[in-house]
Amino acid sequence: MGVEYDGTAFRGWQTQQPGVRTVQTCLESAVSRVADHPVTVHAAGRTDAGVHALEQVVHFDTTAIRRERSWVLGCNVNLPPDIAVHWAHPIEADFHARFSAIARHYRYRILVRRTRSALHADRAVWVHTPLDLALMRQAGAVLVGEHDFSSFRAVACQAKSPIRRVHYLDLTEADGIITLHIGANGFLHHMVRNIAGVLLKIGRGDAPVSWASEVLAARDRTLGGVTAPPQGLYFVRADYPHTFVLPQQEQAGPSLD
Amino acid sequence: MGVEYDGTAFRGWQTQQPGVRTVQTCLESAVSRVADHPVTVHAAGRTDAGVHALEQVVHFDTTAIRRERSWVLGCNVNLPPDIAVHWAHPIEADFHARFSAIARHYRYRILVRRTRSALHADRAVWVHTPLDLALMRQAGAVLVGEHDFSSFRAVACQAKSPIRRVHYLDLTEADGIITLHIGANGFLHHMVRNIAGVLLKIGRGDAPVSWASEVLAARDRTLGGVTAPPQGLYFVRADYPHTFVLPQQEQAGPSLD
Repeated sequence: MGVEYDGTAFRGWQTQQPGVRTVQTCLESAVSRVADHPVTVHAAGRTDAGVHALEQVVHFDTTAIRRERSWVLGCNVNLPPDIAVHWAHPIEADFHARFSAIARHYRYRILVRRTRSALHADRAVWVHTPLDLALMRQAGAVLVGEHDFSSFRAVACQAKSPIRRVHYLDLTEADGIITLHIGANGFLHHMVRNIAGVLLKIGRGDAPVSWASEVLAARDRTLGGVTAPPQGLYFVRADYPHTFVLPQQEQAGPSLD
Repeated sequence: MGVEYDGTAFRGWQTQQPGVRTVQTCLESAVSRVADHPVTVHAAGRTDAGVHALEQVVHFDTTAIRRERSWVLGCNVNLPPDIAVHWAHPIEADFHARFSAIARHYRYRILVRRTRSALHADRAVWVHTPLDLALMRQAGAVLVGEHDFSSFRAVACQAKSPIRRVHYLDLTEADGIITLHIGANGFLHHMVRNIAGVLLKIGRGDAPVSWASEVLAARDRTLGGVTAPPQGLYFVRADYPHTFVLPQQEQAGPSLD
């Protein structure tokens, strides 16, 4: 299924102790009702509290036979307004939303404005000083390619390897909002927010462009920047091998258009 | 002052009985703290529950002497996250945010999508059937100019005259969202939402283009369409005579760019 959510009122994707509102808990409750049996859902990317998704991809195993439209409408009536299912599609049993994904795409939105915004409060990070987009682009270019991203992974990150291949990293600006578009074969925990933190510091002029490559080369999280706040981050979509045909709707970053 | 707000969690602009959360109540509380005396604020356009504002213009009388920056920052620390003050400016005593305004600009946002959206739930009206933009534009053109808008005013509307001059009415489309841009010398209660209701019905093919002029000519609210829901509506800005110089930031509709 393709799932959109506003992460503001969730304590992230993953189910925690009872009573904690997470996307997984709400979604499993809705899908289980439609399936008429308990269901566990698996997501392409497990997002943190406050992080949004335009098209999270999830899979689950079920014995229920329903039309695609019935899964979508049935889930949506059983979901709160801040989660919406956009499509459902039967898939081969060897498909796994997380382990089959060959690429993931994220966006990070930065509102540049002298004063804070009411309408963007939970949808973008607010920066009140001007940012030098050209410097941020130069710094971002250093991160494209296959690298050891140890300096950009959370201390709690459980991935076996810190090596990831960043396919593209672009920055666009429209209506006072700078958007970082990034795609990679996979992301370490907090990787996009830590990259955003480094680019923000360089954009503000608080560090030179060369700092990005220094942080990357150091392979040491303690030498990296501040983790940028979650509300600017959006999971955009995941890519799968062409043998898995999914009715995805979201476009990836501008480089892939 | 120029004020932005997310109308979702407010019961509209205007102060009601104690305990009801309105924009005016929150704003007066913040301004009174900064002024150090009770303050009444007056808005260019009194919005309904769920309606947003990009740059509402408000005025108040005060004996306090503060720098513009102190009004802005002082109010913002005393306001909830869903209201933000963007600028403050001293103005002649004969200025009135509502009565001095010579034009007001609104937007109405329509999300066209097969399934409901989580992130746009409170920010746009959702329509699940395709809309014919060309028909909506033809119908909208009929409403431009000076007319008796009795068919588009709420029963509770207290305006003395139903005559208003619509300066422009444009429809744009981007990223699956249709935006109605409208500017007029003034608006009757529910006028934009009632216009949106008529255009939506015509866009869906449930009424012919000619129905817009029939409704207008009838001068009878009972013959008009359904009032479109509030969450799609945004107060964009107000215009004042050039003798009043304000540091406004929002742009009006595309026709005035």
